[in-house]
Amino acid sequence: MQNFEYCTPTRLIFGQGVIARLPEELGRIGKKVLLTYGGGSIKKIGLYQKVLELLQGFEITELPGIQPNPRYDPSVLDGVRLCKEHGIEVILSVGGGSVLDCSKAIAAGACYEGDPWDLISYKVKASKALPIVDILTLAATGCEYDCGGVISRTETNDKIGYIDPLLFPVCSFLDPTYTFTVPPTQTAAGIADAMNHSLEQYFCEDATLMNDGFCEAGLKSLMVNGKACLKNPEDYTARAEMMFVCTLACNNIMSLGNSASGWPMHGIEHALSGYYDITHGEGLAIITPRWMQHILSERTLPRFVKYGVNVFGINPALPEMEIAQRAIAATHAFFEEIGIPMHLREVGIGPERIGEMAHHIAVNEGLEHAYVPLTEKDITQILLASM
Amino acid sequence: MQNFEYCTPTRLIFGQGVIARLPEELGRIGKKVLLTYGGGSIKKIGLYQKVLELLQGFEITELPGIQPNPRYDPSVLDGVRLCKEHGIEVILSVGGGSVLDCSKAIAAGACYEGDPWDLISYKVKASKALPIVDILTLAATGCEYDCGGVISRTETNDKIGYIDPLLFPVCSFLDPTYTFTVPPTQTAAGIADAMNHSLEQYFCEDATLMNDGFCEAGLKSLMVNGKACLKNPEDYTARAEMMFVCTLACNNIMSLGNSASGWPMHGIEHALSGYYDITHGEGLAIITPRWMQHILSERTLPRFVKYGVNVFGINPALPEMEIAQRAIAATHAFFEEIGIPMHLREVGIGPERIGEMAHHIAVNEGLEHAYVPLTEKDITQILLASM
Repeated sequence: MQNFEYCTPTRLIFGQGVIARLPEELGRIGKKVLLTYGGGSIKKIGLYQKVLELLQGFEITELPGIQPNPRYDPSVLDGVRLCKEHGIEVILSVGGGSVLDCSKAIAAGACYEGDPWDLISYKVKASKALPIVDILTLAATGCEYDCGGVISRTETNDKIGYIDPLLFPVCSFLDPTYTFTVPPTQTAAGIADAMNHSLEQYFCEDATLMNDGFCEAGLKSLMVNGKACLKNPEDYTARAEMMFVCTLACNNIMSLGNSASGWPMHGIEHALSGYYDITHGEGLAIITPRWMQHILSERTLPRFVKYGVNVFGINPALPEMEIAQRAIAATHAFFEEIGIPMHLREVGIGPERIGEMAHHIAVNEGLEHAYVPLTEKDITQILLASM
Repeated sequence: MQNFEYCTPTRLIFGQGVIARLPEELGRIGKKVLLTYGGGSIKKIGLYQKVLELLQGFEITELPGIQPNPRYDPSVLDGVRLCKEHGIEVILSVGGGSVLDCSKAIAAGACYEGDPWDLISYKVKASKALPIVDILTLAATGCEYDCGGVISRTETNDKIGYIDPLLFPVCSFLDPTYTFTVPPTQTAAGIADAMNHSLEQYFCEDATLMNDGFCEAGLKSLMVNGKACLKNPEDYTARAEMMFVCTLACNNIMSLGNSASGWPMHGIEHALSGYYDITHGEGLAIITPRWMQHILSERTLPRFVKYGVNVFGINPALPEMEIAQRAIAATHAFFEEIGIPMHLREVGIGPERIGEMAHHIAVNEGLEHAYVPLTEKDITQILLASM
């Protein structure tokens, strides 16, 4: 077992109706609030109105229009400027992972005198960040319980995972009913995203029994409850468990004490959505079975066997290589079953820039240190197999 | 799924050699330290000397001699007095769960003007507590990652679980090598304690797939790694994983979102060790299979089936009642196999005070609200079956 340090100080406030506690929790932190949100779905479900009603007496500045794959320019820069202009004391992020990711970068940038890109690109370590509270409306990324956010800078095709312990939300309000109206494509992308987080932690050299049981439970729960959410979008129990598992899947608690995988599928996907602005969860789903096929070897076989038997219930008496192949096929089939387009060409990515992307990934993502090290050639092969 | 709130702000610093960071972590909090410990085993393994060496320049006051089932009088009272006399800024608990439990009560009592029993007995809610740092030398109770402690007051046979979010340790140093010298009886009691924590969370009405997977992984890991620790007390990987699972088993993360069991076996055991000062983990192990047998019914059968199949690998094709009975027998057999005396009479408890204890439990432990409600008569039957 590897040495580790772990601390997640975020308070999870989970369940139907918990938003009633927002004024109390927010009021402890500050009265001058930057309210961040996305394209307006929070207005359609009445959440925006509810928040304003609850926050009478607070001084609210709004930053709307944060997009999926949130942008450094304009969103982060606008947010930082608003915080400085209005003396913001706390950021309230209402929406999904993109809004919260963007809010985290704003929180750090608002307490820094220079160009916020210095922080995001790790040129400078933040010494302070504004406190963040979030109300989650999408079960997927788990950023409500971690200290990272992914920021895109389109002019350079950069998509950087910006991580700093200063960025843990103070508290996350998780009401599953806010996810009832999430459309099937986004629900499916969320399932794939969180499953991939579990898989990135599962495929490593030295997982403990606890690590494995935790990841396997997450994967099984996401498949069962994810399908139930797609079948009946207002199935409270299924939406709730999906939301809860997503929350636990990205803060490393599933892989404490092992040497970790290096998150190779995320390394590859960040280039896809950095270059083509595709949905992160869909990109991950497409990459997943091709990456699995690419890294399957005598060395990795035992992992695949455990995965196949424990997650998909494949007969352990079969030959090991057959269990592994069935497990990879079952992974692919599940993503297809929940409606994810499983080829890059279906999400608008042709072969033209594969070489360029593979080079970008090889240079920037450190995948030579992954569980199975990946060279530029490996990455090219995985991308071509995903076409 | 039930609404819940969850926050565990403790920083876990885990692995061989992590104690080197003690001065840095403690120094951030304060220089006036109350060093609490037990019967001297930390001197035998050189940890006491190492701590003093690392903490040169700190002002250290010692509270030695904290016993298993830590006492209100003298330990808590002495600790509170020392804190007040010496202006203590931080408590450093070095030892197992008893030392840390006692330190938590001291931390609250030191910031309260009245009788500390007011706090422990929930007559008064603490408004403040001293910060606590711990170095753990025993894998068992999980109190290094929760905010509770159990305090005994012998003159009244009271054993109270004192819980307050103010009592989370700031950070817990978990070096598995400090558990190498834990004798087999205490190692076994630790295994049983943490297994029971998982079982108390597993047997409930509405567990999610995630809850179940988490508890099952904990149970399986404790059985495999626990046996490995007994076989080779210096098996680092086994000691490490056992320590890690124990840490996760008592802070409710395994049962978030379900309506919980009411921890009935703990309710019963607290009277046993309150009246007879037996080892908590042994008491729990003795009670466990008898409680299981007592609550087995058509209603609870599906839980037992899931437990038997997923934890012990019992053939799911067998009749359900047979699976349940085999699961209970396997639980009993495991505790016997690791050397736990499985009858109350073997730990010095005769039938004389069973009625008195059952009455005390029925009045004080709220077991009428447990997963399967227990009356005084039920409790008597479970205790008699445990003789």
